[in-house]
Amino acid sequence: MSDIKEITQALLKFRDERDWAQFHNAKDLALALNIEAAELLEAFLWKASEQADIDKVSEELADVIAFALLLAEKYDLDVKQIVLQKIEQNAQKYPVEKSRGSAKKYTEL
Amino acid sequence: MSDIKEITQALLKFRDERDWAQFHNAKDLALALNIEAAELLEAFLWKASEQADIDKVSEELADVIAFALLLAEKYDLDVKQIVLQKIEQNAQKYPVEKSRGSAKKYTEL
Amino acid sequence: MSDIKEITQALLKFRDERDWAQFHNAKDLALALNIEAAELLEAFLWKASEQADIDKVSEELADVIAFALLLAEKYDLDVKQIVLQKIEQNAQKYPVEKSRGSAKKYTEL
Amino acid sequence: MSDIKEITQALLKFRDERDWAQFHNAKDLALALNIEAAELLEAFLWKASEQADIDKVSEELADVIAFALLLAEKYDLDVKQIVLQKIEQNAQKYPVEKSRGSAKKYTEL
Repeated sequence: MSDIKEITQALLKFRDERDWAQFHNAKDLALALNIEAAELLEAFLWKASEQADIDKVSEELADVIAFALLLAEKYDLDVKQIVLQKIEQNAQKYPVEKSRGSAKKYTEL
Repeated sequence: MSDIKEITQALLKFRDERDWAQFHNAKDLALALNIEAAELLEAFLWKASEQADIDKVSEELADVIAFALLLAEKYDLDVKQIVLQKIEQNAQKYPVEKSRGSAKKYTEL
Repeated sequence: MSDIKEITQALLKFRDERDWAQFHNAKDLALALNIEAAELLEAFLWKASEQADIDKVSEELADVIAFALLLAEKYDLDVKQIVLQKIEQNAQKYPVEKSRGSAKKYTEL
Repeated sequence: MSDIKEITQALLKFRDERDWAQFHNAKDLALALNIEAAELLEAFLWKASEQADIDKVSEELADVIAFALLLAEKYDLDVKQIVLQKIEQNAQKYPVEKSRGSAKKYTEL
């Protein structure tokens, strides 16, 4: 079993033991993901990047990934496939010769 | 190679072909993740959960996961390990008997 | 008429001319506010604070404030009162002598 | 003095008593605003819009507005002016005849 599948199974088991599938509609999962992303952001607030507490980053990142995988599962999306596809799309938006060494958005290249 | 490792390698290759490591400090990766999370949220705006466009959800979710994996790589975090650990922690915050069928936050249980 | 009231009136007029009150439930207004906040954040992505484009900041900040006022109006909240009250609460969480010159969260003071 | 000016003065006084201007660069203020926006969103998580706790909404909304006004002050932006300007811009993106009763984004109209 792939590691993504394995993590997803553990998340579903945790959810189902608590009978939480009833709350986990896709919209609220997206809200939850945003809330956890903001808690991750809080690890960097009023700080230089290097000053962030790694344990806090690690914990909040775990929460973000958990909700991302639950959302992927909700739509039966293959995580590896959608990310590799997105990389291909981005490669077209950001051709190497135009975007090399530049932080500009593709709309400004 | 695990799925997560494989996706991460593809992301790093994409980044390095464009010489973008210089922009990818942890704090800005956390910003990027939040921005993508909000684009995911936009797929649900002014809509019932079922009305969201799945292609949009899939694309934005891919972006969220991409930045999450880049951030994990930045800190050399093992994604499977940190999520499984977080599930264990949450199991203590949300004991089955107290949280079953309830959407309350652990601070209110 | 106060500034806040005047801006709120203009927002409601814009909304009602388009018959959008039907979409503006409080939950979706909170989503919209988060989406606009993330667009504001994007003005600072991969950049030092001083490099942000002020016109972009100004536009996105306007959107954030617009949804904040619409949400306040939804609950009939007096913006001046709730902010001044929050300042008082924060003054208790962050006593001057403990928090002076420190960026720590009140839970860590 | 306008109410926005009055609230802003109170925020600056609170900030300066604690010598916090040193942390309040525009980028971190934008992070703080996003973090508070997500706490506001949390008031609606796993809930129908009507079930949100109004006191929590009110508190988090106050925080959002506080950081929005601090950011506006940072750039010396006139809040009333930028919001009224944005309404005018949006009126062009969303002409009444095209957008009436529709929640579509202007890019899809």
